[in-house]
Amino acid sequence: MERRVRPSAVIGLDIGGTFIKAGVVDPGGRILARLKKPTEASSGKAKFLDKLSSIVQTFEDIFANRLNIAGVGIGAPGIIDMRNGVIASSPNFPGWNPFPICRMLTGRIHYPFFLENDANAAALGEMWMGSARGARNFCFITLGTGVGGGLVLNGEIWHGMDGMAGEVGHMTVDPAGPLCLCGNYGCLEAFASANALRGKITADLKTRRSAFFRRFGTDGLSGESAHRAARAGDLLAREAFTRMGAALGIGVSNLVNLLNLERIIIGGGLSAAWKFFYPALQKELRKRAFPAIARRVKIVRARAGEDAGLLGGAYLAWKGVNSKISPQRTQRARK
Amino acid sequence: MERRVRPSAVIGLDIGGTFIKAGVVDPGGRILARLKKPTEASSGKAKFLDKLSSIVQTFEDIFANRLNIAGVGIGAPGIIDMRNGVIASSPNFPGWNPFPICRMLTGRIHYPFFLENDANAAALGEMWMGSARGARNFCFITLGTGVGGGLVLNGEIWHGMDGMAGEVGHMTVDPAGPLCLCGNYGCLEAFASANALRGKITADLKTRRSAFFRRFGTDGLSGESAHRAARAGDLLAREAFTRMGAALGIGVSNLVNLLNLERIIIGGGLSAAWKFFYPALQKELRKRAFPAIARRVKIVRARAGEDAGLLGGAYLAWKGVNSKISPQRTQRARK
Repeated sequence: MERRVRPSAVIGLDIGGTFIKAGVVDPGGRILARLKKPTEASSGKAKFLDKLSSIVQTFEDIFANRLNIAGVGIGAPGIIDMRNGVIASSPNFPGWNPFPICRMLTGRIHYPFFLENDANAAALGEMWMGSARGARNFCFITLGTGVGGGLVLNGEIWHGMDGMAGEVGHMTVDPAGPLCLCGNYGCLEAFASANALRGKITADLKTRRSAFFRRFGTDGLSGESAHRAARAGDLLAREAFTRMGAALGIGVSNLVNLLNLERIIIGGGLSAAWKFFYPALQKELRKRAFPAIARRVKIVRARAGEDAGLLGGAYLAWKGVNSKISPQRTQRARK
Repeated sequence: MERRVRPSAVIGLDIGGTFIKAGVVDPGGRILARLKKPTEASSGKAKFLDKLSSIVQTFEDIFANRLNIAGVGIGAPGIIDMRNGVIASSPNFPGWNPFPICRMLTGRIHYPFFLENDANAAALGEMWMGSARGARNFCFITLGTGVGGGLVLNGEIWHGMDGMAGEVGHMTVDPAGPLCLCGNYGCLEAFASANALRGKITADLKTRRSAFFRRFGTDGLSGESAHRAARAGDLLAREAFTRMGAALGIGVSNLVNLLNLERIIIGGGLSAAWKFFYPALQKELRKRAFPAIARRVKIVRARAGEDAGLLGGAYLAWKGVNSKISPQRTQRARK
C-alpha cells in the first residue's frame, strides 16, 4: 500500500575565501559525494556563478535519476541578508557588494536556495552531525586566520536585529590588548587567531631567541607552523598559545555568564593545537565564570571539521525544503 | 449582546533586599494602588510570608468586589527556579535556600503565582511600560549596589540552560581590573556599581585631595554622594564615573557585537548620574562595536524606574493568567 519515495538529497555549498567545498547530503547527514574547487573570486562574478552551476550540474550528472535533489544550502562569508538571499557585504568579494547570489543563481540552477553566513552554517553543521549534537544552546567558535562565531539559541541561529549577531571574535577581552584588524584593541581575534599568533611570535623574536624559528625561519609563519613549533617545545610558540587560551577563557566566561549555554564548540584549523591552549582557557574559566555555570557548560572540540560548513548548508536546505513540503513527505524523506 | 466583564487586575511584588514594593496593576499597566514595606528578612521566613499575605489582603480589602484579582507576579533576588516557583539561592535570604516561596504562599494566598528574578522582572517592566516599549531584543542593565541584568530575546527573558543567564555585571571588561565581590577580577560590576565607585574614590583619596570629600567626609560614601560630588565638580568623583562609563561601554560593545540588540536600557539608582558616565560609554562603543551594529542600537535610560520590578511581576502574572484562560476572555480583559 505504501508508495515508494525515491531517496532524496540536498546540496550543501561552503564558500570560503580560497575554496568552495560542496557535497550531496542525504537526510541522515551522510555526504554521498563531494567536490572541492578553488573560489577564485578574482576571476569575476560570472565565472564564479558558472563554477557554482557546474558543481551542481556535476552532482546531477553523477546521480542522474537515482537521487531527487531538493534544494541547495549555501554558507558564505560576510554579512548575509538571508531573507533576500544576498551577500550584503563580504571582504572576500570586494566590489561585488551587495551580491544577490541566490537571485543570480536562479536562472542557472533550478532549486530553492538557502543562504547563511559561513560561521553560522558551520555551527548548524556541528549541531546536526558534529560536537553540538543534542545541544540546543551553544556557541561555535572557529579559530582560523580570524576568529568567527555562530550562536545557536533554542536550536536556531541567533541573528540579532540585522543578521549581524555572533561576532564572538570581536568581543573585547582586554581593553589594553593588541590592535585587531577591525580597528579595535584587544578583541578575542587579536589574541586567538593565526594572525594574532604570527604577530606575537614575530614581535617576541625581536628580543628573544627561538631555536625552532632560527632553523625553520619565520617566512609564512602560520597557525600550523606555530603549532609545529609548540609541539617541538618552542617556548615562544607555547606562550603564544597560552595567551590565546587565556583570551579564549575570558571570552568563554563572558559568553556563559551572559547566556548560560550548554556547550562551547571550538573548531577551525587552529583548534588542532587544543592541548596547547585549552589548559589556559580552563584556568580563566574557573576564575571568571560563576562556578554553577562553569560546571554545567561543556567545552569541546568541533568534530564535523572541514565538513561543518557544507553540512550546515545542507541542514538549512533540508529545513527550508521540509517547511515547504507536506509534513508527510518530510516524514518519509527523513526515514 | 456583549456580556460585561468585571475589570480585572493582578498584583506585582518586587522583593528587594531592603523593601518589598507591591502594586495592583490593570491590563493596561496602570498601577491602581501601591504599598511599600520593609523586607526584614532577618525576622524570619514565617513573618516574611505573613507580610506578603497581608499585602495581598490589604489590596483585596481596598478593592473588595470592585476588582477581580487574577494572579500574583513576583520578582525576587537570586537564582530562581521559575518552573517550581523556588528561590534556589539568594544572598538576601541566607539560610532559607532553597526557598519554595510559591508553594509556601499557596496556603495563604489563593491566586496563581509567577516567579522571576528581580532584574529579569525589571526588564519585563521596562518592556511593558518603560524605555524598552516596542523592543523585542534588548538588555536591561541595572546600576545599583551591584550591577544586574536581564536579557530579552524575541520578547522573552533569556534564561539559559539553568535559569542563570543575564549576568551582565559579571562580564570581564578588563582582566587586570579590580577584584569583584564574586571573586573574579575586572567584572563590569567592579567598575560600574556603587560599591566600585566607593572603592575607587576611597583609594584615590589616599593620595589625592578632594574639597568635596574633605568637607562632607567619606562616611557612608554612596552612589548618591558620589553623584552629588560629581555635580559639585569634584574631580575624583568625575573620574570614577568616567571609568564606570568606559567599563559600561566595553560591556555594551560586547553585548551588541555578540547579540546585535535593538536597545540597551540602563536603570537602577546610579543611572541618575547619566551625564557623568554616558560620554565615556559612547566613546568606547564607537571604538569597540562594529559601526553598523553600534549605529543601530539605542542606548537609553530606564523609564519605569522604581516601578519596573513590580510592573514586570504584574506583566508575568498577566501573561501567565492569560495563557491559562480562554483567548476570548483574555481579549476582553485586555480592553
